[in-house]
Amino acid sequence: MSSSTDASSVIAVLRGLRAVRQFRPEPVPDAALRDLRDVIRWSGSAGNRQPWDVVLVRDRDTLRALGGVEGYAGHLAGAALGVVLVMPGENAELDTFDEGRLSERIMVAAAAHGLGSSIGWFRGAGSDEAKRLLGVPASRLVRTAISVGVPTEEAARRGGRRRPASEIVREERLA
Amino acid sequence: MSSSTDASSVIAVLRGLRAVRQFRPEPVPDAALRDLRDVIRWSGSAGNRQPWDVVLVRDRDTLRALGGVEGYAGHLAGAALGVVLVMPGENAELDTFDEGRLSERIMVAAAAHGLGSSIGWFRGAGSDEAKRLLGVPASRLVRTAISVGVPTEEAARRGGRRRPASEIVREERLA
Repeated sequence: MSSSTDASSVIAVLRGLRAVRQFRPEPVPDAALRDLRDVIRWSGSAGNRQPWDVVLVRDRDTLRALGGVEGYAGHLAGAALGVVLVMPGENAELDTFDEGRLSERIMVAAAAHGLGSSIGWFRGAGSDEAKRLLGVPASRLVRTAISVGVPTEEAARRGGRRRPASEIVREERLA
Repeated sequence: MSSSTDASSVIAVLRGLRAVRQFRPEPVPDAALRDLRDVIRWSGSAGNRQPWDVVLVRDRDTLRALGGVEGYAGHLAGAALGVVLVMPGENAELDTFDEGRLSERIMVAAAAHGLGSSIGWFRGAGSDEAKRLLGVPASRLVRTAISVGVPTEEAARRGGRRRPASEIVREERLA
């Protein structure tokens, strides 16, 4: 992958990525679902340990229940798909870093298919409740869930604001 | 971005992403550098706080020095570009998650330009040493650096092994 045409479509998706929390009722198309599975499968992880699992939730009742537990994942209630990350729970630093990597990949893959997505976190008792709803052993870490779906027109129109690049990226200068 | 052609080039980059630690001596082309800056600028962060900074290092002596400090970032010594993430250091969980997201974006953007990349971590005294080398205040967190460059032929040929998708991705079933 080195032609500039291919590069520009990838860069456009990365640049255009925004959190979307309002979704239309349509399901996630099969082609997108297939690609999401592939992209999750081919995710890197610290030391190539790849010890996480992912639960794909499409049942509306389960999504609503997950959206109702303690935390910041209420947008799951209206999503067509919830991607719940199940981490080993043995090393907080590696788990958290890998959750960030996985979340970004899933959002990018969704955006490539014209789908919106948003990262949610379960907090406090919400994590145990989510594990119970999904039949995940208590020893695992369940914190991050990504909502995916077709954005509403209003959500699709909305843009994000960011700081200018000059404030964020510094070139190291020779002494 | 919803045509299947565009989606497939994005998915191909995500699927094909591998850590590359051996680089050719050529610099990173200007177009790739410009896109990397843009992709960093348009990165999401927890709560849209976007409090991080990034230092782009191209000076070979500085890269060698960074590659020599304590930790797992030795590959910086042979990289054409080092992307050093500078986090606020106030909330370990948010910092670590955002570092994962940023690292993945940078690797994907590099791969879109046919460049290889690898995530490195400074450890112990290596973090302070890196801050000193880059003039970063001691209060900030400097842990993650991404090496970027043109992969050697051998590195480009090498593929990664992953677990099969069926082992990782579980579909939630209705009760």
